Amino acid sequence: MPKLWNETIEEHRKAVREAVMDATATLVAHHGLAAVTMSRIAEDTGIGRATLYKYFPDVQAIILAWHERQILRHLEQLAEVRERTVGGAADRLGAVLGAYALILHDHEPTVDTAALHRGEHVGRAQHQLTGFVTDLIAEGVGRGELRDDIAADELARYCLHALTAATGLPTRDGVQRLVQVTVDGLRRR
Amino acid sequence: MPKLWNETIEEHRKAVREAVMDATATLVAHHGLAAVTMSRIAEDTGIGRATLYKYFPDVQAIILAWHERQILRHLEQLAEVRERTVGGAADRLGAVLGAYALILHDHEPTVDTAALHRGEHVGRAQHQLTGFVTDLIAEGVGRGELRDDIAADELARYCLHALTAATGLPTRDGVQRLVQVTVDGLRRR
Repeated sequence: MPKLWNETIEEHRKAVREAVMDATATLVAHHGLAAVTMSRIAEDTGIGRATLYKYFPDVQAIILAWHERQILRHLEQLAEVRERTVGGAADRLGAVLGAYALILHDHEPTVDTAALHRGEHVGRAQHQLTGFVTDLIAEGVGRGELRDDIAADELARYCLHALTAATGLPTRDGVQRLVQVTVDGLRRR
Repeated sequence: MPKLWNETIEEHRKAVREAVMDATATLVAHHGLAAVTMSRIAEDTGIGRATLYKYFPDVQAIILAWHERQILRHLEQLAEVRERTVGGAADRLGAVLGAYALILHDHEPTVDTAALHRGEHVGRAQHQLTGFVTDLIAEGVGRGELRDDIAADELARYCLHALTAATGLPTRDGVQRLVQVTVDGLRRR
């Protein structure tokens, strides 16, 4: 059955946006944010400059969209870790926090990206992440695995702040130790 | 016995600097950083503008000196808390971290002060603070009160990052709970 015209248009638009995001990701990974320009993206994707400008008014819009997609992917990645981890709620929490700490460790902000991280989309993602971790902690409290003397959302904020120490750690082993100490703070005594 | 000339000069200079810092502190507390100007400081201290410029080339130099003094005072305050806390090493650590978390809570950075906090003097103070907390933790480990499976300096970094959550907490009770969870992460299991 042929697709409806609207669906095809929508899919095409989505494909163009994805191609632009992919080209941006590759450019940023190899040459940093400053390398992203409208001409370079047009060249790398084979999309005409005029068309590109219909999708994104300027390079800032491209970078923002790419960054937003990257953050959403990280959130999806954490949701997957939660799903596939076997064991108790504390194990799931440890696995999710471990994955989050590695994301922080591997994506150390630079002068370039520090400004991006003050963006509104980052605030929204941070809010979503806090909710996600709060739910995991509440589950652990409900099963008697984690401390119940402090509200789950306060504990979630504690975790996420503690894990920001991952950014400056020299090794991934250090990140694992940080996660361990952080989760130990949540255990029932 | 009359003081030596050099000593008197040195004391006078120190007194002028202190007067400028005190006037700055009062201005910042009541009207924010933007209220600090060379004229206003000259007026509030009664120091002539020409003299003031001999001590500080511009208003940025005054603000930096004031901020540096404030941070040093906070470090001194933490050292005092350590000295006067009775009990074991874990109690001393809890008291010091509690005082530090309250400083973070009470001095929430504004748009103004965020730039100041990226200054070199803040980096130095942070380094000193990490050393101070590392020593406290090492003492607790030595006495068998705290976990010894992770190096004291890694644990100190964990603590200081976890406590940055104090900045956004609505109440001082919340700050105390945060300190409790953070210190619980350090205990021997």
